[in-house]
Amino acid sequence: MTTAIRSEFDQGIALTRHPEEPGRYDGELGAGWQIGGGVNGGLLLAVAGHALSLEHGDHPDPISISGYYLSASVPGPATVRTEVLRTGRGLSTGTASVSQDGVERLRVIASHGDLATVDGEVRTSAQPPQLPPPDQCIGVEHAPKELITQAALLERFDLRLDPATVGWALGQPSGNGRIQGWFRLADGREPDPLLLLLVADALPPVTFDLGMPGWAPTVELTVHLRARPVPGWLRVTHATRNLAGGYFEEDAEVWDEAGRLVAQSRQLARVPRAQ
Amino acid sequence: MTTAIRSEFDQGIALTRHPEEPGRYDGELGAGWQIGGGVNGGLLLAVAGHALSLEHGDHPDPISISGYYLSASVPGPATVRTEVLRTGRGLSTGTASVSQDGVERLRVIASHGDLATVDGEVRTSAQPPQLPPPDQCIGVEHAPKELITQAALLERFDLRLDPATVGWALGQPSGNGRIQGWFRLADGREPDPLLLLLVADALPPVTFDLGMPGWAPTVELTVHLRARPVPGWLRVTHATRNLAGGYFEEDAEVWDEAGRLVAQSRQLARVPRAQ
Repeated sequence: MTTAIRSEFDQGIALTRHPEEPGRYDGELGAGWQIGGGVNGGLLLAVAGHALSLEHGDHPDPISISGYYLSASVPGPATVRTEVLRTGRGLSTGTASVSQDGVERLRVIASHGDLATVDGEVRTSAQPPQLPPPDQCIGVEHAPKELITQAALLERFDLRLDPATVGWALGQPSGNGRIQGWFRLADGREPDPLLLLLVADALPPVTFDLGMPGWAPTVELTVHLRARPVPGWLRVTHATRNLAGGYFEEDAEVWDEAGRLVAQSRQLARVPRAQ
Repeated sequence: MTTAIRSEFDQGIALTRHPEEPGRYDGELGAGWQIGGGVNGGLLLAVAGHALSLEHGDHPDPISISGYYLSASVPGPATVRTEVLRTGRGLSTGTASVSQDGVERLRVIASHGDLATVDGEVRTSAQPPQLPPPDQCIGVEHAPKELITQAALLERFDLRLDPATVGWALGQPSGNGRIQGWFRLADGREPDPLLLLLVADALPPVTFDLGMPGWAPTVELTVHLRARPVPGWLRVTHATRNLAGGYFEEDAEVWDEAGRLVAQSRQLARVPRAQ
C-alpha cells in the first residue's frame, strides 16, 4: 500500500492561508464527504484541527480537540478562523470557528502538541477489540442501499464491520449498543493524527444497534490522541452505555496495527427521532 | 438535611452581572476551593457554566460542557466573559472565558438546555458502582495530612472513599486505576446540575491508584449531564484505561440516590512528574 500524492482525505482537509487576514484559512467541503443531509462531522473536525496545526507550527498534532456543532454543513466553500490562546512548551491551545456563507457550523477548542516527541511510557489496561480478520468482516458493499446512497463518504472508506455487530442491517439489532470493525481509506492513504479525527466519527451511529435507525446529530465531539498510528488497518469500536435525557454518549476507541490505543473519543448525540 | 440559604458552593460560584459590559460576570474564587497550588478545576468549570446559565435564561443547565485549562487559577477576583453562539429550541451554545488580572485561566464551550423538560426514556446499560455503605467507607479525616493541608477544598466535602480503592493512601496502590466513593457537600447543600461539574473533578486523581502521587494538571475536562440529581448522596467513580504519551484520561461517572447515571465526564490530564 502506498500513500497517494494527493489523497482524497488530504484534498478534503486542504486549506489556503488567507493573504490578508491573520489566522484565517479557506477550504472547500467536498460533496464526497456527505452523510445524510450534511458533511461528516469528523471531516469537519479534521478541517478545524488542520487549521490549528498550520497555525501552531511546532505543535502539529491535536492532543485533545473538542468541537460543538452549531448547524449542518453543506458541500462548498468554508472558512476557518483561528485564535491562538496559549503557546506552551509541550502544548499550544487555540480555538477554530468553521463557517459557510457567514453561518457558523462548528466551534472548536483544541490543545496541539507533537506526538513525535511524547513520553514513551505506556500503561494501557484497555483491551483491543477481538475482531475476525478483515476478509471475514462485512464490507460496505453489503450495506442496505438506502444507507449508501445517503452516505457518499462510505465510498472513501474501506470499512469492514464485525458480523457480530451488524445485525441491525438485517433488521435484528443486538441491543448492546456496540458497533466495531476495521477501517482504512479506500485510496490507500495511511493513517496519521488528523485522519484519526475523521475515524472517531466514521462508523454508523451505535443507536442502529439499539434498533433506532435515523440520523443522530452530534452536539459535541472530543477526541484525545496518544500516539501516531503505524501504517495499516485501524480497529475502531463505538459503544454507548447511557441513552437518557434525549441524548446518548458514543465512545470510540481507535487501535492501530501495532496494538496501540492511539485515540479515544466521546461524543454526545441526540437520540434519533422515531421513524 | 436542609439546603442552606447561601451554601459554600453557591457562594463559590456566585457571579455579578457587569452593569456596562454585556455578557460579562464578575466573581471571586474562594481560598476554600484550593487544591495544591491552584483553585479546583471543577469549581472553575462550574463558575463558567453558571455564567452561561445566567446568559441563556431559559436553558439553565449545562448538557455538555468542555473546558480547556490555560493557566493555574488562584484565590481572588475572576472575570467571566461569555459569548452566545447559538440559541436553539432545545439547546443554546456559548463560550465562556475565565480570567484573572487579564490572564486567561479557562476557555469553555458549552451547550445548555433544561433538564426539567427532557425526554423521559432511559436505556442505561452501565451498572452503578458497588460500594459499602457510607459509614463503612473512608472519610477524609483518615487521609494523609500532607494531602489535606494541600487541599482546602476537602473540607467542603463529605467524601467517603471505598476502602477497596484507597490502598494508595497506605502506600499500597492497587494498580487498577480506579477510585470510587460517596460524595455530598459538608454543609448539606443538595446536588444540582452545576454541582455535578464540581463533582466530576472532586476525587483524588486516579494516578494515585497507579502509584503515581503528585499533581496531575487537567488539560481538558468535558462533562455530559443527563438528569437532575435527586437529593442525597452521589456515588462517584473515577477510572483510567490508557496512560500513554505523557497523558491519561480520567472517566468519571456520577450516580444519584435514585440510581440514575446523572453525569459522565472525561478529562485528559498530564501524568504527574516522578517525585
